[in-house]
Amino acid sequence: MDNGAIENLLQTRVLDGKRIAEQIQNEIKEEICKWVDRGHRKPCLKAILVGDDPASKTYVGKKMIASESVGVDSEAIRLPSSISEDDLIEKIKQLNSDDSVDGILVQLPLPEHVSERNVCNAVDPHKDVDGFHVTNVGRLTLNMDSFIPCTALAVIELIKRSQIETFGKNVVVCGRSKNVGLPISLILHSDARNECPGMEATVVLCHRHTPPEQLEIYAKTADIIISATGVVGLIKPHMVKPGACVIDVGITRVKTPEGKTKLVGDVEFEGVRKVAGAITPVPGGVGPITVAMLMSNTFKAARNLAATKATEQQ
Amino acid sequence: MDNGAIENLLQTRVLDGKRIAEQIQNEIKEEICKWVDRGHRKPCLKAILVGDDPASKTYVGKKMIASESVGVDSEAIRLPSSISEDDLIEKIKQLNSDDSVDGILVQLPLPEHVSERNVCNAVDPHKDVDGFHVTNVGRLTLNMDSFIPCTALAVIELIKRSQIETFGKNVVVCGRSKNVGLPISLILHSDARNECPGMEATVVLCHRHTPPEQLEIYAKTADIIISATGVVGLIKPHMVKPGACVIDVGITRVKTPEGKTKLVGDVEFEGVRKVAGAITPVPGGVGPITVAMLMSNTFKAARNLAATKATEQQ
Repeated sequence: MDNGAIENLLQTRVLDGKRIAEQIQNEIKEEICKWVDRGHRKPCLKAILVGDDPASKTYVGKKMIASESVGVDSEAIRLPSSISEDDLIEKIKQLNSDDSVDGILVQLPLPEHVSERNVCNAVDPHKDVDGFHVTNVGRLTLNMDSFIPCTALAVIELIKRSQIETFGKNVVVCGRSKNVGLPISLILHSDARNECPGMEATVVLCHRHTPPEQLEIYAKTADIIISATGVVGLIKPHMVKPGACVIDVGITRVKTPEGKTKLVGDVEFEGVRKVAGAITPVPGGVGPITVAMLMSNTFKAARNLAATKATEQQ
Repeated sequence: MDNGAIENLLQTRVLDGKRIAEQIQNEIKEEICKWVDRGHRKPCLKAILVGDDPASKTYVGKKMIASESVGVDSEAIRLPSSISEDDLIEKIKQLNSDDSVDGILVQLPLPEHVSERNVCNAVDPHKDVDGFHVTNVGRLTLNMDSFIPCTALAVIELIKRSQIETFGKNVVVCGRSKNVGLPISLILHSDARNECPGMEATVVLCHRHTPPEQLEIYAKTADIIISATGVVGLIKPHMVKPGACVIDVGITRVKTPEGKTKLVGDVEFEGVRKVAGAITPVPGGVGPITVAMLMSNTFKAARNLAATKATEQQ
């Protein structure tokens, strides 16, 4: 083992997502302040919450609090779980054509009788701060400037701000969901010669049909492991290369022996932190940064829409 | 080595792309015949060829011959290399709104003063038989029904028709181009529970910044290696697991000692065929199937447009 590896073992960094999120939110707050000083109205975010799912309510609540703290005007629009797809899309269209609205998000999951895909595609791509519209997905795949799903953006921002090298490195992404695992892998393998800054890593995208022994082989050679599966304890200490960076995007609610509930990730944190060079906790890792990236996307939408309007008026 | 591996060594299959392409084209020809018998006009393909690049002329020529043979009406529209981006896009718009045209393709590369991305996005996504429009890229990424780039489709069709198992298998894709390597990897890792049939493989996407020794490690564990880089001799015998399937999408024109030119792929064919279980030659591998898949996409566009028109008339 070389000195670098020994040093890593001695200095495992726990990547503090809360601190990074605060940093980002402070930066955004400052920028929005300047933006408003230059005569613009505050950025405006509308979050649509369908039904009464407690987790969804919590998430939307966190987004509202973050908006408040950075200077984004926000509103949670609550709709009954009985709403038809057509009525929901009609509501979205009203927000699309409302010039005072910059960002629109529809909190998922939606009731079963509503097609999430149709709803995501109903949001104006220019206001699509969740990055779920097919046009934004296509633009991301082509490494064009686009709205990128906030969790993926959070992982990338965490990597950058923690100075984790990606160029020519081996990355294992566990989970191929369209909103998390897949966009993360698309950004990580991307070519720096494209419109968006590339990360230039070699990416292995693993999923439920990757045989466990094969996942181990890939994980052991990985410089960075990103797990976004919701499988508790998927990433174990013996699977991690000493000094690797381990990013845990999993969030699962489990019962403690005392009958309480707590949030846990995909990674066996206590064991893995003894091997890894850097690791994110759950909670307090990627989660808080995700909300900060939503603020970033909302401000981006506001700037873009203002620029478009200025061009139209010329 | 188990019996299966020995058997593989003894029976390396050279996957005959020409034969598979003929099969596909015969099937399409028969279907188009029935389609026309039911009172529809022949599918119609327009290929735009800008400038005088000899390779582009050859490719467009092959597409015209294939069209003729399956019963697709086709025309190569030749435009001067001095054409402006606006004029080229204007020409595309005319074809978009022409009800007698089902498929439109713009042969790449385009002259440097023209943005290929703008041009690809100008083609009506419903007529985009090359699958290069951002909407089709987004739909493919989301595993929705879409037009898929013909070379990627050819590789998938070759795998399916050669009964190469992908479920839970390890695949190494070399090359992350937006038209070839990336769409291939998107399809191969896809989830069978989505709109489009998934291939369920674990995919490693390698590229110019994957260290060569790392590429070797990944390649040696791969059940399927797909190389689409244009790097002659990239895939060498010692990198291939006995019995693996090796698909060569590279095409490079090289000079022979006699001063002639010939086409070669990315794979050291003679050496690798002694190790692999199945291998594609260059030429005569993926190339011919690519043209067949263009015919398939054109017929698909014709069926879709006819269905849309029928719905509109109801």
